[in-house]
Amino acid sequence: MTQRWKITVEYDGTDFVGWQRQAQGFSVQGVLEEAIFKLSGERVTLHVAGRTDSGVHALGQVAHFDVEKEYEPHEMRNALNVHARPHAVSVLHAEPVSQEFHARFNATKRYYRYVICNRPAPPMVGRQYVWYIRHQLNIEDMQRAADILVGDKYDFTSFRALECQAKSPVKSIDKLQISRDGDKIYIDVEAMSFLHHQVRNIVGTLKKIGDGAWPWQKMQEILDAKDRTVAGPTAPPTGLFFVKVDYSNKGNK
Amino acid sequence: MTQRWKITVEYDGTDFVGWQRQAQGFSVQGVLEEAIFKLSGERVTLHVAGRTDSGVHALGQVAHFDVEKEYEPHEMRNALNVHARPHAVSVLHAEPVSQEFHARFNATKRYYRYVICNRPAPPMVGRQYVWYIRHQLNIEDMQRAADILVGDKYDFTSFRALECQAKSPVKSIDKLQISRDGDKIYIDVEAMSFLHHQVRNIVGTLKKIGDGAWPWQKMQEILDAKDRTVAGPTAPPTGLFFVKVDYSNKGNK
Repeated sequence: MTQRWKITVEYDGTDFVGWQRQAQGFSVQGVLEEAIFKLSGERVTLHVAGRTDSGVHALGQVAHFDVEKEYEPHEMRNALNVHARPHAVSVLHAEPVSQEFHARFNATKRYYRYVICNRPAPPMVGRQYVWYIRHQLNIEDMQRAADILVGDKYDFTSFRALECQAKSPVKSIDKLQISRDGDKIYIDVEAMSFLHHQVRNIVGTLKKIGDGAWPWQKMQEILDAKDRTVAGPTAPPTGLFFVKVDYSNKGNK
Repeated sequence: MTQRWKITVEYDGTDFVGWQRQAQGFSVQGVLEEAIFKLSGERVTLHVAGRTDSGVHALGQVAHFDVEKEYEPHEMRNALNVHARPHAVSVLHAEPVSQEFHARFNATKRYYRYVICNRPAPPMVGRQYVWYIRHQLNIEDMQRAADILVGDKYDFTSFRALECQAKSPVKSIDKLQISRDGDKIYIDVEAMSFLHHQVRNIVGTLKKIGDGAWPWQKMQEILDAKDRTVAGPTAPPTGLFFVKVDYSNKGNK
């Protein structure tokens, strides 16, 4: 009889090849699976709410796995944190859940935040966690363009990485909000699910609008084109955070 | 005829040996003096508001220097930032000031912030900018102890590094305020001037009180003892920020 565990995880993506195991380099998944093995002696596979690319950070990523041995929640959290050293991943919370819980399939909403530092001088404190853009961005135009993408279901092919493995490019974004706090611009995005590179491709396009290269109305043309080559470039991973994920009550316990 | 320049500087202290030039390693002073030389061809000496140790960060450090060549303020700022690459120092602001301005001697108040991350799981995002303390700290007791140090002039020998070169150990702290925001504890300190390691030695002592090792009333004994060995250890540099500095109107322009 195995026990399913839900873990909530923070990581600094800078030195990882991404969430997923790769042939080379350290992945968040690999480090955590190895930590679970060191603790339990069991080889497990982690299932995650939102796979992130190399350089992308997480404040509240969620994953699950099954082990046979029994642990107290704080014991699981603390032991994984000891065994994950010296890698930049931390288990914030660990709890036993029912076998019905699935970190990926039961997720009802995923929250991302993209952070831009927008000022004349380059940032130094926290430069690992922003996209630095010197040119003053017009966030009102960025918001007008963003609003075009929100609410209904749309075909997001123009913002989809060529290597994206999703069955359908049709998604719906619940929220895409741009705000400024001093030198920082926050782009908060919420949706049930995302295509590969969708947030970074939207941010790269919004930046083109914010710096005046494109009018905000062009966002409609880009969406309608269903062609990756007409949208903006992929924004760098450094500014992107997987913030948190919601689950239905049914699957959560 | 030379022109005096006031520059406001941000830096990530992680990879610096500190503000001041050392025999080995990169200093903030050295990188900036070299950038000024690359721009102007002139060898200058920077004078700074608050020398910081290795690992200590700054959000609004201020320094001054004199050069003969003439520049526009934005030209000075941008050129220094180009020449300071790839080091983690950024000139936020540059302005010509009168010869009466002195970054160190005209300062009327210096502001430091110390940041503690206080929670069961170690931080990863922003771990370069905090002191991580797992054990829950009692900030009410810390504040009671802190209040003992504020207001009047006191002999701060108990919180003074042995190598401190100040003529007198008598200082007065205008503000020493402890606040919590989620997992973060902020210790904000304001004074006209500080002894070497004074903030970090106070924070190391407050930590002993916050984690219950010492009662808050012990702060009075420590202050009265005028003996460095009775106070707490020096808190690590990672959590310390030189935030900003005030100048009298007279010397500022």
